[in-house]
Parts: sequence; structure tokens; C-alpha cells
Amino acid sequence: MHFTYLNPTNPATFKDRYVTKVAETIVPFSKERKGEVGLIGLPSSKSSISLSMAANAPSTIRKALNSFSTYAATQKHDFKNEGIVDFGDVPIHPTSVIETLDRLHISIQEMLQTDACDRYIMLGGDHGISFPSIHAFQKKYGTIGVIQWDAHHDVRNLEDGGRTNGTPFRSLLEEGIIKGEHLVQVGIRNYSNAQAYDQYAHDKGIHVYMMEDIEEHGILPIIDKELERLSNEVDFLYLSVDMDSVDQAHAPGCPAIGPGGFTSRELLSSIKKAAQHPKTKAMDIVEIDPSQDVRDMTSRLAAHVMMKFMYKV
Amino acid sequence: MHFTYLNPTNPATFKDRYVTKVAETIVPFSKERKGEVGLIGLPSSKSSISLSMAANAPSTIRKALNSFSTYAATQKHDFKNEGIVDFGDVPIHPTSVIETLDRLHISIQEMLQTDACDRYIMLGGDHGISFPSIHAFQKKYGTIGVIQWDAHHDVRNLEDGGRTNGTPFRSLLEEGIIKGEHLVQVGIRNYSNAQAYDQYAHDKGIHVYMMEDIEEHGILPIIDKELERLSNEVDFLYLSVDMDSVDQAHAPGCPAIGPGGFTSRELLSSIKKAAQHPKTKAMDIVEIDPSQDVRDMTSRLAAHVMMKFMYKV
Amino acid sequence: MHFTYLNPTNPATFKDRYVTKVAETIVPFSKERKGEVGLIGLPSSKSSISLSMAANAPSTIRKALNSFSTYAATQKHDFKNEGIVDFGDVPIHPTSVIETLDRLHISIQEMLQTDACDRYIMLGGDHGISFPSIHAFQKKYGTIGVIQWDAHHDVRNLEDGGRTNGTPFRSLLEEGIIKGEHLVQVGIRNYSNAQAYDQYAHDKGIHVYMMEDIEEHGILPIIDKELERLSNEVDFLYLSVDMDSVDQAHAPGCPAIGPGGFTSRELLSSIKKAAQHPKTKAMDIVEIDPSQDVRDMTSRLAAHVMMKFMYKV
Amino acid sequence: MHFTYLNPTNPATFKDRYVTKVAETIVPFSKERKGEVGLIGLPSSKSSISLSMAANAPSTIRKALNSFSTYAATQKHDFKNEGIVDFGDVPIHPTSVIETLDRLHISIQEMLQTDACDRYIMLGGDHGISFPSIHAFQKKYGTIGVIQWDAHHDVRNLEDGGRTNGTPFRSLLEEGIIKGEHLVQVGIRNYSNAQAYDQYAHDKGIHVYMMEDIEEHGILPIIDKELERLSNEVDFLYLSVDMDSVDQAHAPGCPAIGPGGFTSRELLSSIKKAAQHPKTKAMDIVEIDPSQDVRDMTSRLAAHVMMKFMYKV
Amino acid sequence: MHFTYLNPTNPATFKDRYVTKVAETIVPFSKERKGEVGLIGLPSSKSSISLSMAANAPSTIRKALNSFSTYAATQKHDFKNEGIVDFGDVPIHPTSVIETLDRLHISIQEMLQTDACDRYIMLGGDHGISFPSIHAFQKKYGTIGVIQWDAHHDVRNLEDGGRTNGTPFRSLLEEGIIKGEHLVQVGIRNYSNAQAYDQYAHDKGIHVYMMEDIEEHGILPIIDKELERLSNEVDFLYLSVDMDSVDQAHAPGCPAIGPGGFTSRELLSSIKKAAQHPKTKAMDIVEIDPSQDVRDMTSRLAAHVMMKFMYKV
Amino acid sequence: MHFTYLNPTNPATFKDRYVTKVAETIVPFSKERKGEVGLIGLPSSKSSISLSMAANAPSTIRKALNSFSTYAATQKHDFKNEGIVDFGDVPIHPTSVIETLDRLHISIQEMLQTDACDRYIMLGGDHGISFPSIHAFQKKYGTIGVIQWDAHHDVRNLEDGGRTNGTPFRSLLEEGIIKGEHLVQVGIRNYSNAQAYDQYAHDKGIHVYMMEDIEEHGILPIIDKELERLSNEVDFLYLSVDMDSVDQAHAPGCPAIGPGGFTSRELLSSIKKAAQHPKTKAMDIVEIDPSQDVRDMTSRLAAHVMMKFMYKV
Ligand SMILES: [Ca+2]
Ligand SMILES: [Ca+2]
Ligand SMILES: [Ca+2]
Ligand SMILES: [Ca+2]
Ligand SMILES: [Ca+2]
Ligand SMILES: [Ca+2]
Ligand SMILES: [Ca+2]
Ligand SMILES: [Ca+2]
Ligand SMILES: [Ca+2]
Ligand SMILES: [Ca+2]
Ligand SMILES: [Ca+2]
Ligand SMILES: [Ca+2]
Repeated sequence: MHFTYLNPTNPATFKDRYVTKVAETIVPFSKERKGEVGLIGLPSSKSSISLSMAANAPSTIRKALNSFSTYAATQKHDFKNEGIVDFGDVPIHPTSVIETLDRLHISIQEMLQTDACDRYIMLGGDHGISFPSIHAFQKKYGTIGVIQWDAHHDVRNLEDGGRTNGTPFRSLLEEGIIKGEHLVQVGIRNYSNAQAYDQYAHDKGIHVYMMEDIEEHGILPIIDKELERLSNEVDFLYLSVDMDSVDQAHAPGCPAIGPGGFTSRELLSSIKKAAQHPKTKAMDIVEIDPSQDVRDMTSRLAAHVMMKFMYKV
Repeated sequence: MHFTYLNPTNPATFKDRYVTKVAETIVPFSKERKGEVGLIGLPSSKSSISLSMAANAPSTIRKALNSFSTYAATQKHDFKNEGIVDFGDVPIHPTSVIETLDRLHISIQEMLQTDACDRYIMLGGDHGISFPSIHAFQKKYGTIGVIQWDAHHDVRNLEDGGRTNGTPFRSLLEEGIIKGEHLVQVGIRNYSNAQAYDQYAHDKGIHVYMMEDIEEHGILPIIDKELERLSNEVDFLYLSVDMDSVDQAHAPGCPAIGPGGFTSRELLSSIKKAAQHPKTKAMDIVEIDPSQDVRDMTSRLAAHVMMKFMYKV
Repeated sequence: MHFTYLNPTNPATFKDRYVTKVAETIVPFSKERKGEVGLIGLPSSKSSISLSMAANAPSTIRKALNSFSTYAATQKHDFKNEGIVDFGDVPIHPTSVIETLDRLHISIQEMLQTDACDRYIMLGGDHGISFPSIHAFQKKYGTIGVIQWDAHHDVRNLEDGGRTNGTPFRSLLEEGIIKGEHLVQVGIRNYSNAQAYDQYAHDKGIHVYMMEDIEEHGILPIIDKELERLSNEVDFLYLSVDMDSVDQAHAPGCPAIGPGGFTSRELLSSIKKAAQHPKTKAMDIVEIDPSQDVRDMTSRLAAHVMMKFMYKV
Repeated sequence: MHFTYLNPTNPATFKDRYVTKVAETIVPFSKERKGEVGLIGLPSSKSSISLSMAANAPSTIRKALNSFSTYAATQKHDFKNEGIVDFGDVPIHPTSVIETLDRLHISIQEMLQTDACDRYIMLGGDHGISFPSIHAFQKKYGTIGVIQWDAHHDVRNLEDGGRTNGTPFRSLLEEGIIKGEHLVQVGIRNYSNAQAYDQYAHDKGIHVYMMEDIEEHGILPIIDKELERLSNEVDFLYLSVDMDSVDQAHAPGCPAIGPGGFTSRELLSSIKKAAQHPKTKAMDIVEIDPSQDVRDMTSRLAAHVMMKFMYKV
Repeated sequence: MHFTYLNPTNPATFKDRYVTKVAETIVPFSKERKGEVGLIGLPSSKSSISLSMAANAPSTIRKALNSFSTYAATQKHDFKNEGIVDFGDVPIHPTSVIETLDRLHISIQEMLQTDACDRYIMLGGDHGISFPSIHAFQKKYGTIGVIQWDAHHDVRNLEDGGRTNGTPFRSLLEEGIIKGEHLVQVGIRNYSNAQAYDQYAHDKGIHVYMMEDIEEHGILPIIDKELERLSNEVDFLYLSVDMDSVDQAHAPGCPAIGPGGFTSRELLSSIKKAAQHPKTKAMDIVEIDPSQDVRDMTSRLAAHVMMKFMYKV
Repeated sequence: MHFTYLNPTNPATFKDRYVTKVAETIVPFSKERKGEVGLIGLPSSKSSISLSMAANAPSTIRKALNSFSTYAATQKHDFKNEGIVDFGDVPIHPTSVIETLDRLHISIQEMLQTDACDRYIMLGGDHGISFPSIHAFQKKYGTIGVIQWDAHHDVRNLEDGGRTNGTPFRSLLEEGIIKGEHLVQVGIRNYSNAQAYDQYAHDKGIHVYMMEDIEEHGILPIIDKELERLSNEVDFLYLSVDMDSVDQAHAPGCPAIGPGGFTSRELLSSIKKAAQHPKTKAMDIVEIDPSQDVRDMTSRLAAHVMMKFMYKV
């Protein structure tokens, strides 16, 4: 049977013969599949201190990739052949956060064992996913340096609520998975953290840049300087992008929005800069709650962050 | 490569081993595929007189089938093996309504030529889709009787705007595809139609039931009586369900909402009654604009209408 | 200059030559203008106890008249020639409620002095408008009977906040403008009023029907009985329709929504019944806040109430 | 210091001297405090299979009590002196559902040990809270009969996801806390459950009433009959009210909404009937997600359910 | 009859005697009417590739002119006497895009033939309206230069969907209505276009400025340079303002929103600059879908764009 | 009775032992209470020219203080011991704006008479509250200088509508409470004011800075210069922050939003600068309507403004 118009296995959308949408370059992982960038969804947000539906973000961000094409006019380059290998979403456990974190960790390990990709994007979920994720990368790739875009340190104590989304970097440091001086935090804000955790960050040797530093020096020189430093000390660079580092006017869909953060331009240009470094191989994007967003604006920005990471343009 | 939790080709949702979601019984059409009910999406709403995004309804209604299981406790029967064969959505033409109506017509004809299914569900889109749809069924199956749930006659003149969503039954009558006496309209409302069209309906012999008739006699006796009459005169019964026949409190997502329509219970019980007739073989569901709906309530009701049609329970 | 399509003074909407929208029958008042029904907007809601934007309702309800045609199929009658004479909206005073109430009163008096119409519709605004409105009718027409659809008595004391929207009937009774036994309240709810006001209503001789009475006896027999009684005692019947008498599922746009009220069908059938009485000459519709409504559902219902009043069908 | 208008410890709202709001009758528990009805919030929804923010419902429902007064006109009785003793909300654990269920259980036990109240209302949260809640009542009061308003059986297997909101009655039965024949389920719907769980309900002797039974016989006779039966077999009656038993048009704020459920009137009259039984001493209200509601309609309905339970009118 | 407060033909809004709203300077076209700026609405969006309700924008933008006064304090000048002559909205054809484009073209031609105005504003609608609009201006005024604010080239092929909103400049170039070198595009974005169309723009000699160019050089020098160049080559300058050139944080109501576009300040200052050129005589504003906007923010920005064009301040 | 988890008098939220929320530093005023900053709510918006629910802002802003901690990392200082003394909200009169303004005035006077605090924050409400507020401060503290962040002069005539939110500074000047040269207005916009009022401002000697001045010179130098000048002439500096001075993208919840205003960063840095001056002792924040806001973004910004004022960091 031939159909003139119907295609039972594909959605029916307008197709311009000359346009490739980024979403069209996504293919599910299969054995023979090799590709530039691996993609995995980590739809976990039951570890959030404040209730959030951030678990729904992986599908919203994937959908937002339908709004972008693969062509970078500034370089006269079409990235349509640089595909994304999608490993799917990790099914979370409905009632056990511990079990969910295990599943995330094991799944990322298994993804890395396929050796199918050179670089990886992890879509959260809340920031709790960075602990099992970075741990998996450390096991595979050795010493890890992390640049974290965030309004918050995320080094809360573990006694008051377990491994919440406020604790991933505490867990990584306490477990010896990363070293303090290999963690760079940019976009930290006044009135969004506690003195004890600022002190902890200092004691551990974390390199912290407040929004005030960024307003004074600009984000790009800071990223440049830290990339150079880190690249001499680590084997592998991991970017951890908490979207609440962005100002509420530009990323209204984060659970913990507020004024005084990055603009979209600042975020995108700094991600591009970091992605261009040859040791930068992995990135997670976290803390988008689509149910609280305005027209999926924050997921659209996240999709644009993905392009900056994937295409370095 | 074996993954413990990941499945790159399937969404990661909670699975209870004993529950089958109706959405899980949908399979894309393929040659060897036979099934009880065929499903096709007709995402066309550029023929709407009032601007509408009803073209987005097929995907929303399909998604709403995730909210329902296949088990009918009143009959102690699980319909999990009575699958739905999905022929996909017809791609519409961005700027030509004529071309879109042709594509719908040809695609339904081709679907019917597969002989894969006994019964069919068409998901609009606006009511304009019923003209090419019923025409295709008439070509294949002979004399067609139609029961139309609608607040409106939909027999507007064709001069003032072409084949809009206000004209499908005018077109069908003028083209001789159905006869007036083979068309039953239930739920027609005062202050929602014109005298000329009421007169036209009368002249053509359409059987019209106002909401006042339904409040007086109940919807079930009316359906019963008309089913019996029609079944003696036609080869095939087609249900055309304009969701704006339902009261705005129960179906808030229709472009032309208003008070004084059917309750959900009235709609569902009358669809069930009509679906149980052996000659009832096809149904379309139209006029849901998901962008104007409240929590996809109207698409959820449409999904429930599908179950009443498919399972007759 | 002749334009082929443009019409600088009229909106450009689709026109079906056989359809007359109710909104098209509205003409601004002018000296030579005589018509069946006069319409006036009373966009006042600064007297509301709870903050409300009910002042925006007159324009929303007028717009909703675009969703309805003039044809009543049950009577085979087109009301397209029974026009509405629009006196416009009374400009309110930004900071003085007293001044606003005066302007409403004077404007209705002046409207009545034109003798342009037989019957009148007043669009609020909050329920505070009924005091100056009914007062104006009483001056012109003598003894007034009022049927009030409302969840609340609206006979609060005047000391605690002046002439709020909780006080119009208190004011009318205290000022001797209407008599207690000439006021009928239908739809009063438990847990929505105070004992002191129930007692006051009783002392004044108001005829009160609780929702429990309506569930037991039906709304139509109650309206019938009271119409007959009142018509022997008064010169003129005024309907005061607080939309919060309707259940929150059917009228979600009222400031004081709640469960357990009238369905749309109950409201519409009872208005029709009351409107058919020859002494029924005026109606106000109050307590719709369009900013809190869902798809202007409550304004659409109000527009339907207008048709029931105007056309008695 | 005396203030003419200010009151630093109380909110500044309009006060009518004759009106008592139900919310004004709430007092925090303290040792000397005795009262008719105890109130406790169980803001737990991390056990929900589908992500939900039902944990926010206790505060929304409490706020909705500001929309109702204490006066029942049908009985000419003001309940202003029948206060509510508020034990506050149980703080949940951010990452451990097991720990959260323990805290709920212990807190309800401690509440019951105060002997401060005769009857109790538990505000969820998701339906998972009924397991620790009913367990606590059973320990204190002996054999418990439960009437459950719900579209779902909530007897899912515990292997696929632990003690989710789909399992409370499975847990209660498996742990021997209640007997199957002491559980009455009203409002169960087709296409919302699985055959295995229907069978389980049957095997355990649960009395199940489908919506079809209710449409046929009415809800009140069913409640009557079961109250009489249960009261001979149990020491204590507990009502468990899952708001998704109500139709989506009347309770749009539940995570699992759908058509074909109870109307508000059916829910309220049946709660009243059940509450009037002398053995009925406790009630929980669950499955309201305020973030998905329309104008807190579902919380308003829940507040009305509370009045029916507290005042039996 | 004299009314103290009522004015049946005018809306009742607060009037400050010293304030003139821009909306108050709008008068419908009539023969004797001459004015600075002509205004026409082109409510057409059925040519949009993605479904949009952009057809509703003309009325929303006109309404937004009520939010602005005519006084420019920086110049100490009140523009209250520089009126807007409104030609109304062109009625579109419900089912034929071709017919709609014809009506737009003819209507603009007829507007220009009145010679009533020196300069013109066209309110779309989607970008498809620029083809018939610019064509009409070219017929009347000769060689046209166009500056287009847009994230997209809008030179898609015509085979895949006809004259959609992605094609107006392709159509103008192919039909020889404008020359490539007379078209300046500012704000074009990476990942929003195709290589084939970038190449096409290059081959045709279009002057393209990416957002990266604007971030580097600033928008004003670019506009300056191109104004000077164009003014030597063309008779007439036409500005075509696709609001999706603006960042999603500043123009959330466009169908195709995304991050990384112009700020409001960049848009407004560049429009002012271009409007000040004596050859700049016409402007269209397109791609606002009010149903997707936040508080009509994008229409408010469009209204401000109008002031920059009209008053050059 | 000891409870393990329950606390009947406190809300149950997650508590990190090292974090102090700004909201936790609020204590109700009591006699023995001394504190750095006094807080009072002025929930008055019935004086607004355009209908607004700005009266709800005090409670929303207070709630937003839960989103911020007391720690300023840039200074390594935790402000947890610099408490806020809350005098509560002034109850407004439902129908009399005059009476409401009196209550505000008297209440602020009484607050100042307690001598409990050194500095004060007034939360509006609409801008009408600044008249009674500044008047009270003038009575207590002598010559007052005011810096007003606003898009509007707020010196409208009093004849057209009484003491609306467009008149507070007119009232203050006319009553001789402040002098024109002691009033500095920053952020005034073109197309948002009238010539007569610009002239009035000039005649009275008000120092006016347009947005164009700010784009040219920057906001900080302007604030610096005016602080220095004013501090030589006045006893006391009062900041009056109309949030509509901020761009609509950054403060979407103001009644009169528009493009071209301050960014959040500009507002916050300028408030900080002004707050650091030793004579700056009071601030009001006005014109937030929470019902029109997006995710309480504008209230969050207002809360951040409070921190800048309180902590000067
Ligand atoms: Ca984080
Ligand atoms: Ca963060
Ligand atoms: Ca129809
Ligand atoms: Ca219809
Ligand atoms: Ca009332
Ligand atoms: Ca009422
Ligand atoms: Ca349940
Ligand atoms: Ca349930
Ligand atoms: Ca465009
Ligand atoms: Ca564009
Ligand atoms: Ca102001
Ligand atoms: Ca202002």
C-alpha cells in the first residue's frame, strides 16, 4: 500500500525542503550508531526542596529543538550531519529518591560504555541529577573539572533533607569525586545562599564568582581565565547549567526565579566560550519546570544552550 | 549493549504491570496490521470562519488516551487486545484550503482501500473535514446516514466564504453525497443559527432536534428512534461529533462555546447508544482548539467519546 | 472615493448574508430612535467589598452578543428587527463611590425620560448599582417588585463599610423604595450569609428561597407562584441577576464563586419564565469580573440571559 | 501604644460585625483547647505516580474557608461557636517518602492522644496519606469502616513503585488494618482501573459502586444502605474523599481529572448524609493540586465538603 | 435630550483634561480628511506556516494606543494635532489566501489613491502581508528600498507551501518588485534559517546583518550607513518590522519567539533613526499573536514603534 | 503534650539549619520591640484611575521575602539579626477613598510615634498612598526630600477625579508638604505624560530625569548628584518607588506597563546607592497588581528592592 500523503509513523508537519530542524537530527541510540553528541533525559525532580515539575523538562526541551534549524549563518555552516544520539529518558522510581539516583548513575555509566559519542548532554530534572551524573563521568574519564552556572552554591548539609537538589556539589566533594579547586561557580547571588555554605565553598577551595564580579569584569574573561587554569589540572570538563542563574525576565520557568541574574546573551556567549575548549565534553541543563514557564521560553533558551554546546557557534 | 533502565525508543513513564493504557493499544498502520478500529488525524482548521487552532487537536486527543485504561469494569472486560490502527495525520497545505480538503479526501480513500479495519475514527480539525471524509465513505460504502451532534446546522451558503467549517453538510447535500432525510442533527440551539438555514434544513428533510427537544424527551429515545429509522434506509452510519454541542462548562475548549448544551453524561450515553448499532462504522470528532481549553478537558472528553465508540460500553 | 473592501467606520469581520448577530441589532441612542429594549452600562465596582474588576463587564457582555444570532428556531422567529437602543456607559468617578452612585441614578433617570424604550437592561458592575437603578425606576414607574437571583441577601448593615455591593437591598428597604414583601430572593445559600441578615430578611417580609428549596421544588414553580403574587401588588417587575447565584462550574467569572448554585439551564429557564410576564420591564446583570473569567464564559451566559429577557424565548 | 486602625498580628480585611467566616473559627491547638473538630494538614504528594503539587492543598483549602460563613439558614443555626482546632501541618521529608509516611502516622497518633476533639479532618496531599492516617485511627479506635469517594480503587500492587498514591487501600488490606468488607468505594469509573484490581477488590470483599450504579440508583440510597450495614460491623467510620471522584467540570484541579464523575451536588449531599451518622468521626480530603486548579474551585468545593462534615447540614 | 453623564456613541473612560491619548487622535477616513499618517489593518494570518492568531493584532495594537499619550517631553512637543487617519481593516477571505492577498493589495492601492496622507502604517497579520503591501507602494511610488527587522530572511521557496509568511521577500524579488540590493535585513539569527536561503540572499545582493553584527557594531551605525546608501538609490523607504526580531523576553507574543534578539531599546532607537529619514514613508508591523502574548506586552511595544515612526522622537 | 513533628502555630516548611530567610526576620510590632526597619502595609488601590488589584501587593511582597536569605556574600555579612518590625496592614474603607487616606495617614503617624525603628518601608497599594505617607513623615521629621522612580510625574489636576494615584505629588506640593526642588523624578517617559504636567513640574522646580537622560548618563551619577544636592537642603530622604518605572519585561505586574523603562539591575543599583545615604530613612513601593503579574516576578523584584534598602548591599 502506498499513501500519497499519509505517513503512519511520522508526525505531519510542514516541511521546507531546504530546512533541517535540529530536532530532525536526533536519532535513537542503536548499536551501529555513532555520533558527535549523546543525549539523555534525567526526568527526576522529587529531590527538589520546593515542589517542582522539573521532571517534565527533558521532553519540553527536546520539543523546543523543533524551533531551531541546523544552519549557522555566521560560519556559513550547516550542522545537519552532526547528529544527536538519543539514549532516551531514565525511568525514575515513583517513591524512592535513592533508587532514582542509582538508576540515573547506572544509566549514564551504561551510556558511556557504549562509546558511541564524544560528548554528552544530560537534561534534568532538578540539580540533584548532577551528583550521579558527574560521578559516572568521573569513573569513566578521571579527574573532572566543573563549571557551574548557578545562583546557588548547592552545597547544603545532607542531614536536613538528604540528597536534595540543594546538595549535589556537597555530595561530590564529600565523596571525593571532584576537588574543590576543580569546581568553578559563576552567577552566585547575594540573598540566595547562607554564610555557612559560602564558608564551606571557601574552605573547599571552590572558585566562586558573584553576579557583582560578572557585572564588573564581564562573564567572558572569567570563563577564559578559569578554562585555562582548569585545563592544566583536569582530564575532562563538565558544564553544569542551572537555568536559575539567568534573570527571571529571561528564564521565567525556573522553580527559584529572581531578578539580577544573567541575560540570555551572557549565558549563551559564555556557554559557547566554554564549549569551544577541547576538554569540554559534557553538559547538564537543570531546574526548568515547564508547568511554570511562559510559552516554553526557558526550554527554548535551554535548546539554544544545547546548540552552543554542540556546534560551538 | 543491554541497558538496565534505558529504552532509547520509548518514553520513560511509570508502568503498572496490570494496567494497559488505551494509548498503548495504538499501533501505526503497516501492511500486515489488521485491527478493529482505524484512526486518522485531520489537522485542518484554516477553513474555520473564526480563527482557531483546532488543527492541534489530533495530537492532544491521542495524548489524552494516556489518561484512560482499557478496562470496563461494568462488563468485566478488558479491551486491551482490541487495538487501534493509526494511519497518522494528513499533512495539510499551508495556504490552500482546497488542496487540503483534497488531501484529506484522498487520504481517507486510501485508508479505506487498505481494508485493514472495520470501523474508523477521524480526528479533526474543524468541521470542514466532514465533507471530504463522508464523501470518501460514501464512495466506498454506499448510502450513508449521518447523526450529527452540533449546536449548528452547518449548512451555510458557499458564496460568502467557500467551504468553511460552517458548510460541510451543505456541500454534502448539494453534491448529492447524502440525502437530507439521512441526516439527523441533535443539539441545535436557538440564537446560534439563521432562519434561512433552518428553512434549508427543513426543505432538505433533515431531521433536526433542538436542545429543547432533548430537555423534553431525553437524548436516548431520540437516538433510538432515529437509529431504527435510518438503519432501514442506509448502508452505513457515520457519527459526526462537533464538541460545541456540549455545554461550555463541560467542553470549554471549543472555538464556539456557549451555555445550554449537552452535559458530558448526555453526550457519552448517546454516543454509546449510537455506537452499539451494527451499521455504525465511522465517527469524526471536531472543533476542539487545545490552545483555548482548560487542562485539555475537552480533549479528555473526546478521548472518552472514542472509547464509547470503540468499546460500545 | 469608493473602496472595494475597506470600510473605515466598521470592523472587518466575516459576514454571512443570512445571519444577524445580536450585537448587530445594537444602535446608539439618538432622538429619533425608538426600540424594544434599552441598554445601559454601569461600569462601577469600587463599591465591592472584595476587590473586583466587575466594572469591565459591560463591554465584555456586549462583545459576547457577537456570539449569538437573532434567530429562535423553536419559534421559527427571527428577532433581527427587535433592536437594542444603547445609551452607552455611565462614566464613574475615580475616587468617590457616592458620586458614582449619583451619576448612575441620574443617568438612568435621564434614560427613562427619553421614553425611547419599553424595557431596559442594566449591565453592572457590582451589585451596588441596583440601589440607584431600582430607585430610578421606582420614581418613574411606581411600586416595584423585584426578583433577585443571588447566593446572598445583600442586606448588610451600612455602618461597616457604607453602600457596598453587599447592601443594595438594605438601602432600598431602609429608604422605603421597595417593600420587603415585594422582594423575592432565589438561590440563597447556606454558609454564605449571616443570621442577622436572615433575620432582617424575615422581619422585613422578604420572600426567600434557598437552593435547598429549589432542589426540592424546582425553580420554575417558585417563579410562577411569586410572579402571580407580585403582579397583583406591584406596578412593575424588575429582575436583578447576580451571576454568583450560578454554580462556579457554570459561572466561573464571578468574584464570589462557590459550588452548589444554579446550573445554566436553571438560570436561563427561570429568566425566560419571569421575562414573559407582562409587568417585567427591567433587568440588571451584575457581579461578573471578566479578568477572573474563563474564556468569557460568564459573560456569554449573561448575554444569553439578555436574549431570554429580550425575546422571551 | 494604642493604634486606631493597625493590628500588627492580624490581617487587615473587611469585617462585617454580623458575619463569622468559617476560617475565623479555626484556633491553633493548645493544651486547654477542646473543640468539636480537629484539623491537620498532610502536605505530602511526592508519593504521586503522576507529578503533582497536591502538597499545597492544605493551605489553599484553609484559605477557602474564608469564603464561607458559619450560618446555615436552612436550620436557622449559626455554627460560629463550633470551632476547629488546628494541629498544623506535618513537615514532610524532602527526599524520603517512607520517612514522610512515618511522620504523618506519628503526628496523627499524637493528635489523637490529646483527646482534644471528637472528630477529625485530614487535608492531603495525595491519597497516599490515607494509609498512615487510617492506620493511626485504627490503633486508637478499633475496627474501622471506610467509605471512599474515588474514581479509582487505589489497590495497585506495591512492587511497581512502592507506597504510591495508587496503593493506600492495598496497604491497609494487606497489613490487616481494615477488612475488605469494611471498605465501600463509590464513584469508580470504567477506563480508569485495571481488571486485576477489580478482581482484587472482589476477592477482598470490597463493596464497589460504579458511576453507572450511581446514575441508576442515586448516590443517597447507596450511602444509606452501606451506612446501615457498616454501622453494625465497625466501631468507627472514616470518610476518604478523593476529589477526582467529581466530574472535571466541577473539580478541575485534581491531577487525574476526567468526565463522567459526581456533580458537586451529588458529592455534597452524600457527604452530608454520611457525616450525619453518629459513628462517622473522621474524614480525609485528597488529590487537589492547586497549581492546576481554576480559581481554587476545587479547594472551595473541598471547603464546602468540610462544612458538610463538621455541621452535618 | 441632553444627558448629564451619558454619551451613547463614546466609551466611558476617565478623562484628564490635559491628556491626549494617542488613540484619541485616530479618526476614520472620510473624503475631507487629510492627515500625517494613514493607518490600515491587514488581519491576515492564514498564510502562516505555524498556526497563528496574528490576524487579531490590528485591534490589539490599536487598543494599546490608549496606553500612550501624545506628549514627547524630551522635545517639549505635544503631537495631539498630528492625527492618524484610519482606513479600517481589510476583510479577509475565510478560505482563500490568494483572494485575501488580492484584497490586501487592492485595498492598499485604493488607500494610496486617496492621497489623504503622507505616510502609512500597515498593521499585520503575519509577514505574508508585506508582499501585496510593498507591491502596492511600488506601483504608486517607484523604486522602493526596504529595511526589514527580522530573525528570518523570509525568502523560502514557493513550491513547498505557496505564498506563506515565510516567502514575502522571495515573492517581491522574483516578481521584480524590489531589487536585492534595496533590501536590508537586520537581526537575522543563527539556527533560524537555512543555508539555501542565506545563499539566495547573497546571490540576490540583499544586505544582511546578523545579531552578531549588531552586538559588535551596534544597530544605529548599521541603520545610518544603510539609510545613506539606500537614499541614493531609491525613491521611497519602507520599514518592515517583524516583531520576532525582538528577544522573547521583550516580545513574548510572537508566534516564533526565541532568545538572542533585539531588546526593546534597540528596536525603538533604530526605528526612530530610520523614521527620521525623509524618504521613509511607510511601515508594516507583523507577527504578533495576541492570544499568545503576556499582558499585550508585544502589542504595547508595537504601539510604541508606531509613535517612533509617526513622531520621529 | 509534646509533638514530634507538629507545630500548630507555625507553617510546616523545609528548614535548613544554616539558612535564615528574610521573611523569618519579620516580627510583629510589640511594645518592647526595637528594630532597624519598620514595615507597614497600605493595601489601598481604589484610588487608581485604571482599575487595579494593587491592594493585594503587601501580602505578596511579604511572601516573596521567603525567597531570599539574609546573607550578602559580597560583604561576608549575614543580616539575620537586623530584623523587620511589622506594624501590619492598615484596614481600608470599602467605599470611601478619603477615609482610607486618613486611615493611612493616622496609622503611619502612630507608627512613627512608637519610635521603635530608625527606618521605614511602606508597601502599597497604588501611588495614592504616598501623599498621606510623606505627609506623616514630614510632620515628624521636618523638611523632606523625595526621590521618585516613576514613568509618570503624578502631578495631575485634582478636579478631574480627586486624589487618584495620578496626583500624590501634586497634593504634596499644593499642600506645601514638600517643595518642588526637593522632589527628584527619575525614569519619566515620553508618551506617558502631558505637556501641562511637564510644565507644572518645571514651574515647581521639580528635578526631572527622562529615560533618555538615564540612557545617556547612567542612573548612578544622577542619583549621586541629586543625593549630594538634596542632603544639603533637607532633613530626611524618602524614596518613592513606582515599579512601573521598570521595563515591562522586568516588571510585568504593574497596572501601567510599557517598554523602555529601567532594567532590574538599574533599579536595584540605584536603590542601593540612595539607601546608603545616611539621610535616607523611608521608602514606599507601589503599583504592583499581583493578579496581573507573571509568577510574582514584580513582587520578587520589590522584595529585592527592600533588601537593597534595608541592608544597603
Ligand atoms: Ca543549582
Ligand atoms: Ca540554583
Ligand atoms: Ca459544526
Ligand atoms: Ca458547531
Ligand atoms: Ca448580590
Ligand atoms: Ca451575590
Ligand atoms: Ca485515590
Ligand atoms: Ca482517584
Ligand atoms: Ca518575517
Ligand atoms: Ca520572523
Ligand atoms: Ca506613580
Ligand atoms: Ca507610574
